[in-house]
Amino acid sequence: MKLLEERILKDGNVLGENILKVDSFLTHQVDFKLMKEIGQTFADRFKDAGVTKVVTIEASGIAPALYVAEALDVPMIFAKKAKNITMNEGILTAEVYSFTKQVTSTVSIAGKFLDPSDKVLIIDDFLANGQAAKGLIQIIEQAGAQVEAIGIVIEKSFQDGRGLLEELGYPVVSLARLDRFENGQVVFKEADI
Amino acid sequence: MKLLEERILKDGNVLGENILKVDSFLTHQVDFKLMKEIGQTFADRFKDAGVTKVVTIEASGIAPALYVAEALDVPMIFAKKAKNITMNEGILTAEVYSFTKQVTSTVSIAGKFLDPSDKVLIIDDFLANGQAAKGLIQIIEQAGAQVEAIGIVIEKSFQDGRGLLEELGYPVVSLARLDRFENGQVVFKEADI
Repeated sequence: MKLLEERILKDGNVLGENILKVDSFLTHQVDFKLMKEIGQTFADRFKDAGVTKVVTIEASGIAPALYVAEALDVPMIFAKKAKNITMNEGILTAEVYSFTKQVTSTVSIAGKFLDPSDKVLIIDDFLANGQAAKGLIQIIEQAGAQVEAIGIVIEKSFQDGRGLLEELGYPVVSLARLDRFENGQVVFKEADI
Repeated sequence: MKLLEERILKDGNVLGENILKVDSFLTHQVDFKLMKEIGQTFADRFKDAGVTKVVTIEASGIAPALYVAEALDVPMIFAKKAKNITMNEGILTAEVYSFTKQVTSTVSIAGKFLDPSDKVLIIDDFLANGQAAKGLIQIIEQAGAQVEAIGIVIEKSFQDGRGLLEELGYPVVSLARLDRFENGQVVFKEADI
């Protein structure tokens, strides 16, 4: 997605070996115009796939996932990272290790929001090691629902998340693919859309 | 907001003494159509107020805040509840106690996204004790920016958050105000919009 790649080059900050900070438009401050374009781009790709739900994980996935859901005209569900006292029955869970935050979280979705007739498009802001997406897949399969694909805004192609998810049998569709960082600049691989 | 009150009556679940669960359209599964209406309703109210930023707190505030930002055509910023290794300088923080989750979190916003010329509309999904909103106000004032108002989707009017924020001098504008629960049913107070 050319618009996204241009925005990453303009406003992204490369930190250290493997961190790209995009907090001015995606992960902290959010540019709704770009999110709408992202939503439309995924929706164009999946408009004939029969997707019935968009699933993401709090918190940075919510903004892009919401506009994908709007463009596909389906509900969006965001998985929770911590138990809440108002969430107490019929909860589907998976363990997810975050390399960025260096903690393991129990990720959960209330089972009542997924059923075997659902075809789910997973959306997330970043794909690095694939642990978050893998946790979401486990939860969706516990519900007997089908994962159509994993849509990623920014893929760190130098990490092994894509390989892991493809080995599990799920297509990954990424709008921007980071091949490597050179002198503090992003070098892209060809994106999927 | 009549549409919201009707939705609460239809799909909200009263749990125990003081919990209203709205996880089928707001706090877990998200109905983007309702969020758009919420965004437009707040925007109609604040369209002449010169708002330059919408600020919320992860995670359930993001969906309504995003559509408010879209309708006002300004950026949305979501405050973070935990430190992230990619967030390491110029961070403004406040301590916030969550009665729902029974934990104190450090809430933070990168200072670079707020400046003294900003006029901020705070948006949150729930107002109970007002601790989250108070933390956001503290952060916004550390940046020298101005808080225009606090826009709330669902106010628990039987708790003291509104009083606390009004005493601090900030207007609270709530789309639905829960007066009390009677036999497992919500009884509303007159809403602000």
